[in-house]
Amino acid sequence: MPVNLPAPNPAELFPIAGVTIGITEAGIRKANRKDLTVVQIDAGASVSGVFTQNRFCAAPVQICREHLAGSQGIRAMVINTGNANAGTGADGLARAQQSCAALATRLGISANQVLPFSTGVIMETLPVDRIEAGLDAAIADAKADNWLNAAHAIMTTDTAPKAFGAQVSIDGVTVSITGISKGAGMIRPNMATMLGFMATDANVAPAVMKQLALELAEGSFNRVTVDGDTSTNDSFVVIATNKAAHAPITSLASPAGQALKTAMLGVAQKLAQAIVRDGEGATKFISIKVEGGSTQAECRQVAYAIAHSPLVKTAFFASDPNLGRILAAVGYAGITDLDQTGIDLYLDDVHVAVKGGRNPAYREEDGQRVMKQSEITVRVLLGRGSAADTVWTCDLSHEYVTINADYRS
Amino acid sequence: MPVNLPAPNPAELFPIAGVTIGITEAGIRKANRKDLTVVQIDAGASVSGVFTQNRFCAAPVQICREHLAGSQGIRAMVINTGNANAGTGADGLARAQQSCAALATRLGISANQVLPFSTGVIMETLPVDRIEAGLDAAIADAKADNWLNAAHAIMTTDTAPKAFGAQVSIDGVTVSITGISKGAGMIRPNMATMLGFMATDANVAPAVMKQLALELAEGSFNRVTVDGDTSTNDSFVVIATNKAAHAPITSLASPAGQALKTAMLGVAQKLAQAIVRDGEGATKFISIKVEGGSTQAECRQVAYAIAHSPLVKTAFFASDPNLGRILAAVGYAGITDLDQTGIDLYLDDVHVAVKGGRNPAYREEDGQRVMKQSEITVRVLLGRGSAADTVWTCDLSHEYVTINADYRS
Repeated sequence: MPVNLPAPNPAELFPIAGVTIGITEAGIRKANRKDLTVVQIDAGASVSGVFTQNRFCAAPVQICREHLAGSQGIRAMVINTGNANAGTGADGLARAQQSCAALATRLGISANQVLPFSTGVIMETLPVDRIEAGLDAAIADAKADNWLNAAHAIMTTDTAPKAFGAQVSIDGVTVSITGISKGAGMIRPNMATMLGFMATDANVAPAVMKQLALELAEGSFNRVTVDGDTSTNDSFVVIATNKAAHAPITSLASPAGQALKTAMLGVAQKLAQAIVRDGEGATKFISIKVEGGSTQAECRQVAYAIAHSPLVKTAFFASDPNLGRILAAVGYAGITDLDQTGIDLYLDDVHVAVKGGRNPAYREEDGQRVMKQSEITVRVLLGRGSAADTVWTCDLSHEYVTINADYRS
Repeated sequence: MPVNLPAPNPAELFPIAGVTIGITEAGIRKANRKDLTVVQIDAGASVSGVFTQNRFCAAPVQICREHLAGSQGIRAMVINTGNANAGTGADGLARAQQSCAALATRLGISANQVLPFSTGVIMETLPVDRIEAGLDAAIADAKADNWLNAAHAIMTTDTAPKAFGAQVSIDGVTVSITGISKGAGMIRPNMATMLGFMATDANVAPAVMKQLALELAEGSFNRVTVDGDTSTNDSFVVIATNKAAHAPITSLASPAGQALKTAMLGVAQKLAQAIVRDGEGATKFISIKVEGGSTQAECRQVAYAIAHSPLVKTAFFASDPNLGRILAAVGYAGITDLDQTGIDLYLDDVHVAVKGGRNPAYREEDGQRVMKQSEITVRVLLGRGSAADTVWTCDLSHEYVTINADYRS
């Protein structure tokens, strides 16, 4: 059961002019399961993406990077679950290219106008024949109002679909934003999550799209972690179909750029947090805020050390205020000149540690009260400066071990 | 149940001339449990130690560093379990100093000739009155032949005592080496493990002791991990009582220095590996060898990425050859110019991946066979150079979550 993850609200999943989506059952790994999604994008859209920093990046990630760097506009995406096409060498690259070519032929576009995405088990051969066989049905299913079905079709160990939308007024024109994501394990995105797709009909100049995608990922997917494992397939794609009748946004710093970015970031954060709320075995959603650092980077480093500590995560699972484990994680986060006597720790409103030691006023029952909640904020004050950062994570439960000891079987 | 950890062999735990050990029940946290150990060292010994790199290091670690840097020889150690005296601020430092002073008074030495060690729960007040009250009994118990009892007395979540010994001939003189260690969780030592103590009657010049302790830690405790959590209290102390009738060892590079170091390293590795074999919830002992790196440091970095991946560790627990997870960990280990097409992966003798892709000759049943073993070697060839390194770890099981969700209760 995800932690306080609302079911997608269909009324909020706005169709985006210029985007249609079709899904089908291609039988890639299991029968009777929607596992193939085709997204078609009208000519003239601005598209950008950010991808995993894992050096063992999957074949489709390598091809996405190549196709996005090309001069022809992106016109389609093909997404399969059940197989990650990672750790598959030259053969995996050829199979990913083949799926792009097969879709391109059917749509009358070039293969390098297609972005491929795969998610599932690593180091197994992509059954590209089944993808090809499913393309016609996915194309036939194309409709603008298909975001929720797509959110279902891209799930792997996810227990719930993840889809959010928003509308914002740009120069008096209402533009829509809709996004979906998937992921529950192997989650410590380092440019983007397993899979995240957002589209808007806003009119965004191609020149600022890369920056927009980067800033959105930076403020959302790059701040979540489930188990610290950066996936081979992390991909986050942002599409602006440019259908809305406002002047093109040529700078993110402009009022229109700011308005759009803020609205899109709200959706991106919900999508990213949804992955943590549905983290494998998660029973709690934990925000880790680190303040008073010399730099934002060191704040995030400390936040991730806490978020990745198995001891901290199991203590949250047990609702046990064994909070010294948090201090220990702060200590080994890698800030070599950290002075422990400058550090304060809060659990929600409870002041746990003062200047590196236990707060004399701290009472175990106060810590216990907060630890029992399903939403908890850990706040660490480093006492070194004025920088801050936040990371979102979940606890480590028996269910995580069960899921990952059984995945594949 | 530890993984293939033999019970200590009393015949191998050699008394070390110049060292006596006494233990008692001081009731520090729980009743009816040996929890206080006093080690007395004759004047004239060479003593050195390496300690946690955690910036939130415990009060006793801070005092050990100070006392070892002093000019007076170390004459005693006082070790308690049940309380780590970490995250305790200035009050914790005062209490650790008080325990040193109390022991020094009883032994007729200076407080700065005493090294204090604490292990147990973090951020709780050290009951130094109980330590003081127990000192007389611990001193009265002093004997040379007490290593095994001390190995029991320093245990926390350990399920078995860890003690090993060896003898080696130096210039025709037989010298003895005996060591003990403890630790099962919060184990990713970064200079030394939770607690490790080794003594020898060998004659080692004080000038080379620091180097000897560093090299021993580097080859043993700094190559193991259970959960990646670097403790606040890691301490590893090496004592040479200089009682043996051979010429002083003034260089580790000399034949005598090499012989002693090799023998001591053998014991240190057994002590370090024992911690992994008794790792919280461990069901498997895994050696991770990374070869073909540009530097030894990058090999260790890759080995630790694999050793810390919850996905890799749960797959080992499940005996599931979901080996793409290992490739993913190699990919996110942080080598930014890593070329995945140069990487090979072996599981014991089974060649799993070739040049970054699945070995066409690899059969699932071969991987399955190795995964079912209790001792497994993962071998990664980076194809970048000739450096290599090895790290030892264990799997991640339900029992780990149970232990750490219940610890303290």
